[in-house]
Amino acid sequence: MCGKEASFRFRSYNIRLCKDCVEEFIKRRVRKAIREFKLFRRDEKLLVAVSGGKDSISLWDIMISLGYNVDAVHIDLGISAFSDRSWEKIRDFSQKRGIKLPIRLSIRDYFNGKGMEDIIKEDRRPACSLCGFIKRYIMNRVALEGGYVVLTGHNLDDETATLLGNLISWKDGYLNRQSPRLEGRDGFAPRAKPLILCSKEEIEAYIEVRKLPYLDERCPLSKNAQTTFYKRLIRELDRNSPGIKLKFFLGFLERRGRFRAKQQELRPCFQCGMPTSTGICNFCRLKKKLDLNFDS
Amino acid sequence: MCGKEASFRFRSYNIRLCKDCVEEFIKRRVRKAIREFKLFRRDEKLLVAVSGGKDSISLWDIMISLGYNVDAVHIDLGISAFSDRSWEKIRDFSQKRGIKLPIRLSIRDYFNGKGMEDIIKEDRRPACSLCGFIKRYIMNRVALEGGYVVLTGHNLDDETATLLGNLISWKDGYLNRQSPRLEGRDGFAPRAKPLILCSKEEIEAYIEVRKLPYLDERCPLSKNAQTTFYKRLIRELDRNSPGIKLKFFLGFLERRGRFRAKQQELRPCFQCGMPTSTGICNFCRLKKKLDLNFDS
Repeated sequence: MCGKEASFRFRSYNIRLCKDCVEEFIKRRVRKAIREFKLFRRDEKLLVAVSGGKDSISLWDIMISLGYNVDAVHIDLGISAFSDRSWEKIRDFSQKRGIKLPIRLSIRDYFNGKGMEDIIKEDRRPACSLCGFIKRYIMNRVALEGGYVVLTGHNLDDETATLLGNLISWKDGYLNRQSPRLEGRDGFAPRAKPLILCSKEEIEAYIEVRKLPYLDERCPLSKNAQTTFYKRLIRELDRNSPGIKLKFFLGFLERRGRFRAKQQELRPCFQCGMPTSTGICNFCRLKKKLDLNFDS
Repeated sequence: MCGKEASFRFRSYNIRLCKDCVEEFIKRRVRKAIREFKLFRRDEKLLVAVSGGKDSISLWDIMISLGYNVDAVHIDLGISAFSDRSWEKIRDFSQKRGIKLPIRLSIRDYFNGKGMEDIIKEDRRPACSLCGFIKRYIMNRVALEGGYVVLTGHNLDDETATLLGNLISWKDGYLNRQSPRLEGRDGFAPRAKPLILCSKEEIEAYIEVRKLPYLDERCPLSKNAQTTFYKRLIRELDRNSPGIKLKFFLGFLERRGRFRAKQQELRPCFQCGMPTSTGICNFCRLKKKLDLNFDS
């Protein structure tokens, strides 16, 4: 873009960029997503969900660079050394950026001292879906209490892999709700994905150029073969026809209305007051089950 | 199914079958497709499009075994030795089955003695799409003249690979028309795909069990990387979640109505009378272009 020697190549756009331009390019993509998908309004408070991985650290960094006033929250999953190393990276980043540390919440506080390692042993669900569900619950409570929009680091590869999986299994309900911004409703805080127009490769270039600290490790509990499988298919697709990943996603957004599913009616959970389609929400049910299992 | 020792395993259905049961199983799948998708009526004349490859030979064989009175047509593509070997296999099959040879049409008769090898040199389109378009035109003319439904050997792998490609590029027009039976309209004969519920693997087992002659060669002109690519993705998908290929396809059929596209208005071609959206159809335009190129 500037005439200097390029050191990065983004095949999907067929462009080569120097370090400075990589940074500018990614920031433009994020600004474009915020504008085109109306990710949040000026009067909304923003809360970045920071895991310490490359997507969430990049998101946080970009939001600050773009001049937004964001708060951040980190959920300590209680996966001993891994969680500690995540927090270290977050601390390094905060220091480097001269900003205050994120709010740190531990799932141990919700589950009587138990961490993810303990929880997955007591439940049949796959670790990643269980963990995702717990994180969404906690994040949602925090966001509701503080009146926030939750910003997550989902990138274009994450979104298109999910999209492909949902299409192939024709999950109309999920397809209907797959969006750059999920509006808040009955006890759900709004959620938005500012990195949704940036591919994995672009985020990796960004974090390299910016020399940001982040945790470069897969979670030791993750065995989510399904997501990994679809991500690989998406990568192959885009290698085969550069740019198709983005077109696939944008084409879907134009047609999202076709995937209609009846919205479940929600009531406040008997126990915690968060929304649920049954009497007691899944989160409280999990807590109860774990308490029983550990008590006996 | 019968208690004898199994020699084939179809992972998508999680069953093991002996030779006899493979044959019975495939015939049931074809009967099911004919019935459920109303592929043709009792009063319709049936014309099998036979290339000499495993799908079309299996289709022809199964239709005869199921007691249908079918005619067959073969288009000689004029790809010297390859086309000759295709015809030999078809002759072997007819002999083995004690049936009359198919009608044999040569594209050389339509293009002043030129075969596919000559034609692709004079046109910029990829060989496979050019050849497909020529075959469909000729087959359609023959079917219209004889009042036939054209039966083609497209199997489940072909269909789902096309479906995946059309979805990823959101080709609404193609998606809208992707169906086990295409109704006839303004100059188009009806077309139907009786093997649509049979995977490639099942057809391969069928042809092995039945010891049918067929041409086991890829066309020397084919370089259709795109289709091959999507077929590989589909195979990997089904290996990863056995049965998902069929569910993906059936789920699509339930939702096909969502993919609406304006149907183009068709007029008879100025030259040949076949349907076209412009004054002179693509086939006649190609003929004209080739004549000019070769005359000069």
